[in-house]
Amino acid sequence: MSEFRKDPLHNKWVLVVPTRGKRPHAFSYEDISEEKKDKKNCPFCEGNESMTPPEVDSFRKKGKAGEPGWLIRVFPNKYPALNKESKMSVSADKFPEIIEGQGFHEVITETPSHTKDIYSMNKDEILLILKMYRKRYKILKEKKNIKSVFIFKNHGRAAGASLSHSHSQILALPIVPPFIEEETQIIKKTSSCIYCGLIEKAFEDNRVLLENSGFIVFAPFASEYPYQLLVLPRNHQPFFEEVEDEQLILLSDVIKGVFGRYKKLLGNIPFNYFFITPYVKKGHWNIHIMPKLTITAGFEKGTGISINPIPPEIAVMELKRV
Amino acid sequence: MSEFRKDPLHNKWVLVVPTRGKRPHAFSYEDISEEKKDKKNCPFCEGNESMTPPEVDSFRKKGKAGEPGWLIRVFPNKYPALNKESKMSVSADKFPEIIEGQGFHEVITETPSHTKDIYSMNKDEILLILKMYRKRYKILKEKKNIKSVFIFKNHGRAAGASLSHSHSQILALPIVPPFIEEETQIIKKTSSCIYCGLIEKAFEDNRVLLENSGFIVFAPFASEYPYQLLVLPRNHQPFFEEVEDEQLILLSDVIKGVFGRYKKLLGNIPFNYFFITPYVKKGHWNIHIMPKLTITAGFEKGTGISINPIPPEIAVMELKRV
Repeated sequence: MSEFRKDPLHNKWVLVVPTRGKRPHAFSYEDISEEKKDKKNCPFCEGNESMTPPEVDSFRKKGKAGEPGWLIRVFPNKYPALNKESKMSVSADKFPEIIEGQGFHEVITETPSHTKDIYSMNKDEILLILKMYRKRYKILKEKKNIKSVFIFKNHGRAAGASLSHSHSQILALPIVPPFIEEETQIIKKTSSCIYCGLIEKAFEDNRVLLENSGFIVFAPFASEYPYQLLVLPRNHQPFFEEVEDEQLILLSDVIKGVFGRYKKLLGNIPFNYFFITPYVKKGHWNIHIMPKLTITAGFEKGTGISINPIPPEIAVMELKRV
Repeated sequence: MSEFRKDPLHNKWVLVVPTRGKRPHAFSYEDISEEKKDKKNCPFCEGNESMTPPEVDSFRKKGKAGEPGWLIRVFPNKYPALNKESKMSVSADKFPEIIEGQGFHEVITETPSHTKDIYSMNKDEILLILKMYRKRYKILKEKKNIKSVFIFKNHGRAAGASLSHSHSQILALPIVPPFIEEETQIIKKTSSCIYCGLIEKAFEDNRVLLENSGFIVFAPFASEYPYQLLVLPRNHQPFFEEVEDEQLILLSDVIKGVFGRYKKLLGNIPFNYFFITPYVKKGHWNIHIMPKLTITAGFEKGTGISINPIPPEIAVMELKRV
């Protein structure tokens, strides 16, 4: 019994097909704990600071920039997707359109330890990462020509992490990405708060996994991927960079809860997460967490429709049980 | 030197970053010839017809439905993404929106041989596949409640093929997928023929890989993936299902050319291809061919922007050289 579900925040359809989950190799519960061990000379490890571009920020126990003693460390990506300096004149009225890839691309190493990851971190360690996200977000958003700041994390090779040492990335972009633009336009068009509506519907449908006084974590109605989750501030809160310390503590609490449950049910699975901050005051900034258990193939690429073999209602039921 | 390029046919941006191609593990030239050999009891092999759902179509040397002797064989997918029969009443005015997953999902086995694939097929064998595509397209498009027919192929596990025996899939859908809807809307809005404009620009930019009297094959200006190609009929030709035999012969010629060049430059790489038929008379139906060499990670998922480490101009230069 399959159905197309429309994502209320984006112009996207998902095809939820419970029976596809039953075919052989429908998706893989790949525990990637072993991936960690084959790294020597990791440029993200404490003591190897000289192997990365110069540090631009850190939280530290001791020492200064470029030295060991850090807890979280930030530096420009060695292979940046964006150029810091402008190198060409932009001709925006060209056909087809081109915009220069000017902006910033930073790496946030989340821990000096090579083997620690978000599954094994405690709440205080997670909180420190969140504080660095907020700090860099604020700094980068003030830079010239920046229209959007995008924080994300790839965990595991299958999810696109080229180095296994736990890290996140942050990009400051000269355009508003289509995904965020779409969400912003939909918020503008909706008279009531669409996020509050989604929260209400998630409770009705039993799709809520976790909640505390600050946040609700639920599986979106039109989840594109098995066990996908959305983290939403419970109250109206448009801009991530303005979030208070108290809120970040509550956020670290639910993040810890999410990865604890993933680990128990599925193991140390590869995943992506990313922060979305629509650029209108009416929104709730939010975090999408997407386990990487399926492959995006020809159907998804050519239609724009994801096939999800695990209905979100079932995903939450399973995650709650552990 | 990176740049954002707008896809003229869709509301998509691509970030072309030549330097990202230089980082270690930027992408993999994975030759998957070896994947084939580990299969026993393949349900797509000649002689194993009873392992699949009953045959609905075939081109044959001899025998009848369900028997050996076929050259191309079509049957419903054992784990269909869509239900043949309607099982629920649709409530289209619901929030969020749901549409029943009613439609057809067929598998086209392209050859009785377990080891043959598109890299090793001759033009006549490719032509026979194309003829079956056209035949099934015509039949499925006439079915009740069908808004769109979608033909695609996944080659290799990394590209989403769960069985290695060479096959394609065809879905008949109750909605027009967003990717095709977007393209159709852009054609409608453009006064001249946008495809003819793209062909002209591709010649100007040296992005044309192959051509004959029927087709042009080029790397799109905003290629999302390394070595991605677009196959366009040279003349206005809106609907794939109306293509003449003579055209299909010319198409098999360029398809053979494309995979010959991929194989020489990159090996037996995993890929996806799919057919797009916009639903207005002004269009050119087209085929996207996307090698699967990179991983879609957090950035791509959360922004909707693909990062491509190989500029299309370079991809064509390399493919032409072999």
